[in-house]
Amino acid sequence: MADKITPRETNYSQWYVDIVTNAKLADYSPVKGCMVIRPNGYALWEKMQSILDRMFKETGHRNAYFPLLIPESFIKKEAEHVEGFSPELAVVTHGGGDELDEPLIIRPTSETIIWSMYKKWIQSYRDLPLLINQWANVVRWEKRTRLFLRTTEFLWQEGHTAHATEQEAKEETLKMLFVYQKFVEEYMGISVIVGEKSESEKFAGAVKTYTIEALMQDKKALQAGTSHFLGQNFAKAFDVSFQNRKGDLEYVWATSWGVSTRLIGALIMSHSDDKGLVLPPKIAPVEIVIVPIYKNNTKSTVIIYAENLYNSLKDKFSVIFDDDDQNKPGWKFSEWEMQGVPVRIEIGPRDIKKEQIVVARRDTGEKINVKRNSAEEKIRTLLEDIQNNLFRKSARFRQENTYQTADYNEFKEVISQKGGFIQAGWCGSAECEKKIKEDTKATIRALPLAKEETDRRKCIICGREAKYTAIFAKSY
Amino acid sequence: MADKITPRETNYSQWYVDIVTNAKLADYSPVKGCMVIRPNGYALWEKMQSILDRMFKETGHRNAYFPLLIPESFIKKEAEHVEGFSPELAVVTHGGGDELDEPLIIRPTSETIIWSMYKKWIQSYRDLPLLINQWANVVRWEKRTRLFLRTTEFLWQEGHTAHATEQEAKEETLKMLFVYQKFVEEYMGISVIVGEKSESEKFAGAVKTYTIEALMQDKKALQAGTSHFLGQNFAKAFDVSFQNRKGDLEYVWATSWGVSTRLIGALIMSHSDDKGLVLPPKIAPVEIVIVPIYKNNTKSTVIIYAENLYNSLKDKFSVIFDDDDQNKPGWKFSEWEMQGVPVRIEIGPRDIKKEQIVVARRDTGEKINVKRNSAEEKIRTLLEDIQNNLFRKSARFRQENTYQTADYNEFKEVISQKGGFIQAGWCGSAECEKKIKEDTKATIRALPLAKEETDRRKCIICGREAKYTAIFAKSY
Repeated sequence: MADKITPRETNYSQWYVDIVTNAKLADYSPVKGCMVIRPNGYALWEKMQSILDRMFKETGHRNAYFPLLIPESFIKKEAEHVEGFSPELAVVTHGGGDELDEPLIIRPTSETIIWSMYKKWIQSYRDLPLLINQWANVVRWEKRTRLFLRTTEFLWQEGHTAHATEQEAKEETLKMLFVYQKFVEEYMGISVIVGEKSESEKFAGAVKTYTIEALMQDKKALQAGTSHFLGQNFAKAFDVSFQNRKGDLEYVWATSWGVSTRLIGALIMSHSDDKGLVLPPKIAPVEIVIVPIYKNNTKSTVIIYAENLYNSLKDKFSVIFDDDDQNKPGWKFSEWEMQGVPVRIEIGPRDIKKEQIVVARRDTGEKINVKRNSAEEKIRTLLEDIQNNLFRKSARFRQENTYQTADYNEFKEVISQKGGFIQAGWCGSAECEKKIKEDTKATIRALPLAKEETDRRKCIICGREAKYTAIFAKSY
Repeated sequence: MADKITPRETNYSQWYVDIVTNAKLADYSPVKGCMVIRPNGYALWEKMQSILDRMFKETGHRNAYFPLLIPESFIKKEAEHVEGFSPELAVVTHGGGDELDEPLIIRPTSETIIWSMYKKWIQSYRDLPLLINQWANVVRWEKRTRLFLRTTEFLWQEGHTAHATEQEAKEETLKMLFVYQKFVEEYMGISVIVGEKSESEKFAGAVKTYTIEALMQDKKALQAGTSHFLGQNFAKAFDVSFQNRKGDLEYVWATSWGVSTRLIGALIMSHSDDKGLVLPPKIAPVEIVIVPIYKNNTKSTVIIYAENLYNSLKDKFSVIFDDDDQNKPGWKFSEWEMQGVPVRIEIGPRDIKKEQIVVARRDTGEKINVKRNSAEEKIRTLLEDIQNNLFRKSARFRQENTYQTADYNEFKEVISQKGGFIQAGWCGSAECEKKIKEDTKATIRALPLAKEETDRRKCIICGREAKYTAIFAKSY
């Protein structure tokens, strides 16, 4: 198994594909740009969904479902929206054997169809805030696709909220951004930069877009989630107003926010190694695998001992007892390493004599002997430790690969030679942003919310006064 | 609120629409035939999903996700399949601004795309059985639509399994049929007939289709779930063979099975009354609502007492404390009755003096006084009682509206005057089946698995020997 994976050093892109296919997370489909999410990959998505769904509900949101198909005219109602999404649309022209009077678009995102409904549901300040989330598939026609990272169809959640005041909508935008940050850092173990997008990188139709940006092992950035303050743009496009407490009509304020199956790509590229997937315990569908090691004459003793351990753990952890007779222990070790199971327990005749088990952690490869009677407690601590270690490693990696410079030559050298994030001053003009992109392929990933001490007095390009400290990187 | 509902006697169809819209379960969308599932409706679907998903996993299935879009040529590979689905297809002809070389179909069901993948994944008997389920949206172009019952887009789950032997696939087909029966009867409280479909009513591409059929309050049948034995039809169409234990190549055996958001329609039409929704506790997103009743001088006493009760119940039940000051208790009673909450607790100053609470059950309207210190226990029993009562009522209703006859004139009279299920002998010929449909609009809903004693010696139409006892009804 493991020898099928191309090492990262040899070919990073191939390494990624090898992990996805060998761990059976996803497969190419016969439909161009669309992938099949296999059971191992879908189990990750289910785990992410269940955690995020709880976080959304704890912050007062409810799930709903809106139509997949959107009248073409709707997409055109918000000027920036149509401009941004037009090149990516899939169009249904025939239904039930007949040509349609008006073509229907497969949703690339649901602002337009949802705001057409909000018009029916919102009349008064009493109807606000309206806090709705949708779990759904969306389609955006993509020329170049990669499993999980960029596919024509993907799965996501999209929150769409409506508010009586600008202030409240802005607070919601940031609240959900921080929900994403918490989820990605505390559960997925990925350290992110939290910031605002520049004008040219924001969502088509938003007033402001906020983002969490992660750094992959090849030193390229990946946008892991976005939250948009939409102002009154969609309320105006769909004529959604409400009567405020004073009895006056006002347009409604809006947000939208989403994360997608792309997060699975981020997860793989953050933690995995040349042996396969590495999963943080809080996201791992299986936390522990028990592998018995025996010969014919020790088989029954070992199986009984291992099964006893399995029974004592199975209500407290997600654990698999791999007692399959067809495969040897060494093969099983590789296979479960490939699948990223955080903790492996090995049990052989000698361990039983010593009343111990051998515990191997996937993140470091370290093996320790643990007394049988303290197994549960030690494993619990170990899982926490693995979770923390992965996050610390991710944070350290990001820190070690974040550079500061006030010199454009150095900037270009870092981008082309080292990669990673570069902090630099930016005057705020689209021209300077564009020049950097043309020169280096790097884009502004975020204007960080946390203002760090840095030499941001001057724009790295034009030398004028810098309005922002921007984070630049090449990205997925 | 409640007075907005048209009584069933006046107009059953309007009653149904009134419930769906007033309980805010769903709404009409601007896209013809597509509905919006509102948060109250989606909460029902989430509850159903979580129960079914657990049942699928307990029977060894894993979830995966396959593409929404299917090449047109795939749909055409299985002769009966294309014939059955052609009139209902939505076709994507343009993507990313260009006309596509081959049109893509929005999945009406996923047999074809899934079996094209199974060809890649199945080589040997070791790869079998392959037990996969998908939660997804599908699109079938419908001329006449009704909220939940028949919509162009709907949400469902579709199981697709692959087996080494015919026997095993047949067992799987029935196993999942019985999972559906258990779910619909034990959780949704709806009594169903379990049986096989006739040749003309089976799934396009199946060898045999099994169904669970429920009877709605207007005496029309509703197909609540189907499970199909697909034989080797799709394996042959997509050339999926495997090497058996002897080393020979054989085509794979298949099943598929599904239930959809249509079940929400069945739920509404089985239990609800002229006051609104009635929900079985096991499906109800909210089991209990607490309504405090007070005047200004008793407010704080009542609120404290009610809140204390809420706190003692909230970890054990799904409970809402409706302490909204804007609405009067009477309004709240109607509103929560509309939404189908199984148990309402009323607390007023006099109850507090007697150390009791008043408990009203939604299914019968009955109110009882319960001692405060036995509240939890009594409510638990009451919820079970409501669950059982709804199922018993449903079973009795079905029994009372099931007729047997050997006389075709009587048959026609029952269908047109009374409705309900009619058991009658059937020779098995498509001609007799067709004649009944033309004469009465009734179809064969099922050939029951449970053979009941009945006068099935002769076909109700032609008088020849009957091969089956068939259940006839008009249906949704």
